Amino acid sequence: MQKITLGAMPFMSVMPTLLVGANVKGKPNYMTAAWATVACMAPAMVCVAVNKMRYTAKGIEENKTFSLNIPSANQVVETDHCGLVSGSQEDKSEIFRSFYGKLKTAPLAEECPINIECRLFKSVDCGSHLLYIGEVVEIHADTACVTDGKPDITKINPIVYAQLTYFDVGKQVDRAFSAGKKYTKK
Amino acid sequence: MQKITLGAMPFMSVMPTLLVGANVKGKPNYMTAAWATVACMAPAMVCVAVNKMRYTAKGIEENKTFSLNIPSANQVVETDHCGLVSGSQEDKSEIFRSFYGKLKTAPLAEECPINIECRLFKSVDCGSHLLYIGEVVEIHADTACVTDGKPDITKINPIVYAQLTYFDVGKQVDRAFSAGKKYTKK
Repeated sequence: MQKITLGAMPFMSVMPTLLVGANVKGKPNYMTAAWATVACMAPAMVCVAVNKMRYTAKGIEENKTFSLNIPSANQVVETDHCGLVSGSQEDKSEIFRSFYGKLKTAPLAEECPINIECRLFKSVDCGSHLLYIGEVVEIHADTACVTDGKPDITKINPIVYAQLTYFDVGKQVDRAFSAGKKYTKK
Repeated sequence: MQKITLGAMPFMSVMPTLLVGANVKGKPNYMTAAWATVACMAPAMVCVAVNKMRYTAKGIEENKTFSLNIPSANQVVETDHCGLVSGSQEDKSEIFRSFYGKLKTAPLAEECPINIECRLFKSVDCGSHLLYIGEVVEIHADTACVTDGKPDITKINPIVYAQLTYFDVGKQVDRAFSAGKKYTKK
């Protein structure tokens, strides 16, 4: 295998596609994002990177709350639309029906099968982006997408984001914490 | 759609599967991880959550450098193995051939098609986990996995992680920054 250097770039292989929800000036707003992951097990935390100039950032700073909403692949048009237009130019409060959970100020998109309701724990200034780390206070889920009390990926049918393209989840390669048992020293 | 609450849990729909590389006591060590994403565009940054008790955490704290190595689906056994055993119990320095880039102390796994070489920018104590935010100083790529100077996901064939299972990337759903143009107000 021959390796070459490509320079510094903000690369990650695959990422989740989601909608960051925040109330801005009292109105729900949703922004498409993919730069998100889990940040901590206990307490449960997630994080998402948001460009400082984004309208959504104002809402998160204002309320210290936000949501991460997981759309299904069949919601790709509405989802991508939220990334094409800014809430500063267009009222995005009607694209999804919003409801509120424990925090009262983090709008949750009703149509998305999973909503992660977060209280802002810390925002880290990284340069062009703020990395918002949020404590998960509640997971709201479509009953049709839950198996044994947990969100079920095969029912959610989430959108994988990679190199400017939305994909669905492919076939199972192996089981985690299991596949490695087949390892034999070279 | 009927919604129920599932309580607070560290949930994310889909995540990348990768190996966090760090030198611990002068030896390369690789730890399987999925809680990672891009943290910033400019400068380019990535982040990864690592349990405080992990052997890898010692190496990152020691050198202030680390790497994120993206394996292919055909490396799932070696990859998962690195998550089953701790470097404190087993020397994992021979599972992959290591090489070094600009930083000299962040081991890069030769067999992985993409290596993201990082200088520690900040570590955020979230509770059980430290969220390591690293500035990307270089991307090393297998020449066979590059198209037009960028890593090519279709050639890398990365592993998607979701609910304790490894998946491959499925079929294209739509194009980002494009699908939303089909949106019409309801």
